[in-house]
Amino acid sequence: MSKTIQIFDTTLRDGTQGEKVSFSAEDKIRIAQRLDEFGVTYIEGGWPGSNPKDMAFFERAKQHTFQNAKIVAFGSTCRAGNSPEEDPNLCALIEAETPAVSIFGKSWLLHVTDALKITPEENLSMITRSVNYLKEHNKEVIYDAEHFFDGYKHDPEYALSTLKAAESAGASVLVLCDTNGGTLTHEVSTIVAEVARQVNTPLGIHTHNDCELAVANSLAAITAGAVHVQGTVNGYGERCGNANLCSVIPNLQLKMGYHCVPDDQIEQLSKLSRFVSELGNLIPDHKQPFVGKSAFAHKGGIHVSAVIKNADTYEHIRPEVVGNKRRVLVSDLSGKSNVAYKSEELGFDFDKRSASSGEIVQALKERENGGYQYEAAEASFELLVKKISDEAPEFFKLEGFRVMMERNGKDEYRSEATIKVRVNDRIELSAAEGNGPVHALDAALRRALREFYPEIASMHLQDYKVRVLNEKDGTAAKVRVLIDSADENSSWGTVGVSENIIDASWQALSEGMTYFLMTRNSKPQKTKSVNKNQILTG
Amino acid sequence: MSKTIQIFDTTLRDGTQGEKVSFSAEDKIRIAQRLDEFGVTYIEGGWPGSNPKDMAFFERAKQHTFQNAKIVAFGSTCRAGNSPEEDPNLCALIEAETPAVSIFGKSWLLHVTDALKITPEENLSMITRSVNYLKEHNKEVIYDAEHFFDGYKHDPEYALSTLKAAESAGASVLVLCDTNGGTLTHEVSTIVAEVARQVNTPLGIHTHNDCELAVANSLAAITAGAVHVQGTVNGYGERCGNANLCSVIPNLQLKMGYHCVPDDQIEQLSKLSRFVSELGNLIPDHKQPFVGKSAFAHKGGIHVSAVIKNADTYEHIRPEVVGNKRRVLVSDLSGKSNVAYKSEELGFDFDKRSASSGEIVQALKERENGGYQYEAAEASFELLVKKISDEAPEFFKLEGFRVMMERNGKDEYRSEATIKVRVNDRIELSAAEGNGPVHALDAALRRALREFYPEIASMHLQDYKVRVLNEKDGTAAKVRVLIDSADENSSWGTVGVSENIIDASWQALSEGMTYFLMTRNSKPQKTKSVNKNQILTG
Repeated sequence: MSKTIQIFDTTLRDGTQGEKVSFSAEDKIRIAQRLDEFGVTYIEGGWPGSNPKDMAFFERAKQHTFQNAKIVAFGSTCRAGNSPEEDPNLCALIEAETPAVSIFGKSWLLHVTDALKITPEENLSMITRSVNYLKEHNKEVIYDAEHFFDGYKHDPEYALSTLKAAESAGASVLVLCDTNGGTLTHEVSTIVAEVARQVNTPLGIHTHNDCELAVANSLAAITAGAVHVQGTVNGYGERCGNANLCSVIPNLQLKMGYHCVPDDQIEQLSKLSRFVSELGNLIPDHKQPFVGKSAFAHKGGIHVSAVIKNADTYEHIRPEVVGNKRRVLVSDLSGKSNVAYKSEELGFDFDKRSASSGEIVQALKERENGGYQYEAAEASFELLVKKISDEAPEFFKLEGFRVMMERNGKDEYRSEATIKVRVNDRIELSAAEGNGPVHALDAALRRALREFYPEIASMHLQDYKVRVLNEKDGTAAKVRVLIDSADENSSWGTVGVSENIIDASWQALSEGMTYFLMTRNSKPQKTKSVNKNQILTG
Repeated sequence: MSKTIQIFDTTLRDGTQGEKVSFSAEDKIRIAQRLDEFGVTYIEGGWPGSNPKDMAFFERAKQHTFQNAKIVAFGSTCRAGNSPEEDPNLCALIEAETPAVSIFGKSWLLHVTDALKITPEENLSMITRSVNYLKEHNKEVIYDAEHFFDGYKHDPEYALSTLKAAESAGASVLVLCDTNGGTLTHEVSTIVAEVARQVNTPLGIHTHNDCELAVANSLAAITAGAVHVQGTVNGYGERCGNANLCSVIPNLQLKMGYHCVPDDQIEQLSKLSRFVSELGNLIPDHKQPFVGKSAFAHKGGIHVSAVIKNADTYEHIRPEVVGNKRRVLVSDLSGKSNVAYKSEELGFDFDKRSASSGEIVQALKERENGGYQYEAAEASFELLVKKISDEAPEFFKLEGFRVMMERNGKDEYRSEATIKVRVNDRIELSAAEGNGPVHALDAALRRALREFYPEIASMHLQDYKVRVLNEKDGTAAKVRVLIDSADENSSWGTVGVSENIIDASWQALSEGMTYFLMTRNSKPQKTKSVNKNQILTG
């Protein structure tokens, strides 16, 4: 029977302190439900005393039942002069009506005397009275010892006395916080082990990533005796972030033999990570350990050929265990094994096609020199391979388009596109307005195609990214547009490159529709016959 | 006298194995020169035997003098059947003409017998012969023991015998590699300490970040006796990346008392990080420890008011020590202290302006609800504050513009913009073509303004980013455009939000020019008088 570690998720509270991190009350409810399914022990929802959005979350949370997790409201000990029942912060904690609360108090003597300007004894009394008061209201109390490691290094005896105050008043867990993130791993090991000898209450750990050690410090604290770990999904949080639970959990459970969440949930880890970044509208970190898109991506030719033979050679765990997957990247470092692996994934028999394999590698390199990037645009890669093999279906041919956008002196604007396409030797001319030029173009193309391919209504554009390639050229620079399109079942990426953002968008947009029609087995008009030199030069 | 640790940078070799990481030969030379100034011990430039771009780097490197660092070429031990002098890989290492070379050999018995399909003795002989051969050619040899930790766990005796083979043949450093990144910190501590007792040659450490432990593992190895650490700028590298030198170096030098680079270079760390991400055209990770834009950014109201009083409260080091700076974020979590700090930074006396302070906070919150983000657009924030205080200069007034872009069936396209602005009660109408619609609009505006403000020629657009805000709406979604403009001395960010990408670009573009004219003390036409309700509603 492996030892159980409590997972305390603070994505919705400390996570939102991160730059660019913001969730609506509705997002917060959805994330809490997902974390509950995943099996964490506690979900800290916010600080009801500090802002109205957080209070709205607790109001809504009351209407939901959580199967596994306890919802936690966060706050501070009462203010020096206040009696607990008059303290607005403690009152807000009671009103949140959560089964558990976490409150933070000061451990660092310097802060007590210099920042709060109270005596050391008054601080201890504030801790005792606050925990007592919450216990009287039948709350489970998680005590966060703010700046514990800095405080302990400054005055171990006083730092310990603050923990003992919380312990005597009935706190269930004493959480040692590295609030500034400046503590090194060996210091965490030593201090946690020492504290474990001095108190009887279970210990928790709360770290920040300012030294890039948040995960290591969390693991070190667990090894030294802590049984409760606080962190956030994807490591979101103030400054450099909190301990990343997407790394802490698999390290503890898959490598160190602890139990954190149900075994069948670990494979939901990658989905959980993406779900939270999507709701937060945050770009996922592709090289994030365990769950990132690149975490099991292989680029170097040697690595690729080795990993195909035996995954142990360059993978520390099976990607599927955390719901991730292996990827082989096609890039200018690629040898034929990468292209072969990729092509086989796409259903080509690469060996038998040795005639065109050289051409494909060559075309890729030239395209990439021109700014195309296929790592996130696998649909465009597949279309390119098919074009070179004369297997690309042609569903429509562009005869021309025009996009116009105007703004007057009253801040009113309008966008309009006209497009002419040929389908089945029939010319279709259509026009559409849109919120912007790309939207107008998208609408005009859909309108032109819909009577030939009504199924096009079920696909939509999911994400649209623009990257300036040669920044020093300013607005004259080349841009790369990456579009993710999706239908109800899947999503696919396409790429376009041009000095003209509308043109780059057109390339990615039209390839996204072509790919959709191809995978839906729509009836193509004919197989496109191409001038290969034109493809090779982009 | 503190102990010196050798810094071995492999950004240009192992770093380029990362997804999306690619440098031209010219980029590589510029990065090598910068690393040399910074004071690293070794710069690994590439694998001359594996690809032509890497060979081009070594050819060019021969023409440069490096003051502090030794350039290193990377390769593998000779192949089983080859004598060293016939081995193309070893020959390429000699031809690179670097003072030092690093070669990797197998430590994991399983790989020797199953992947290479040779006997354990043959592997030892390959190591011995390869190191010997390179020593005969007067190379300093750095021996990389691939998969060392996995190999040691599997068969410690054999793993050690590979190190001893390299040691006897004259390797100067034995580098223990955690190639798959799966080793935990306490395992690194134990194994490095044990190896240090068994060999006399200095030890090095090479880690990967697959468990989010690369930095911790590097520090643990140094504590256990290693004196050489390999890593990359910003942690670039295959899969989840290599050990991040931007964190390893300040931890070692500022916190653990080792000497890595000259003391006066540590404050160049943030610039080095951004330089490398810029040349690689990679988006910097804003929450990167020490050097990231958010590393010393404070958002929560309590943190902000505390950090203003005493930086120790929420900063583990002074940001200036690593060339970074404190930032205070203005967001929907902001209280008045954030706005006050920000405003004071911009030269406003916030306290005396209490009449408009509420309006400013209110306007900010409404703008941010509408999708504006001022964290990276400080120039737009300053203009907003000035507008509300009736202090915004007006250099020109837009009467209207029209942008047109067309593409014909032959893949030819053109973009054209016309614009009408009012300056000094004079109407100026101008037109311009451009590579794309935003470029045409930028050109038309510059043309219209240049006779009034000739100084506008010295500013240019430096970066242009587009982010789709509500992705599920596809091409009809709102977009946020962030523009960085620059002159020879500084750069500044502006933001625009609209459902129309051209309109959002216009907002950011025109604010970028207004801000430039304002900071240049260009003579404004008049102080703009605004309808505040209009500002408040965006």
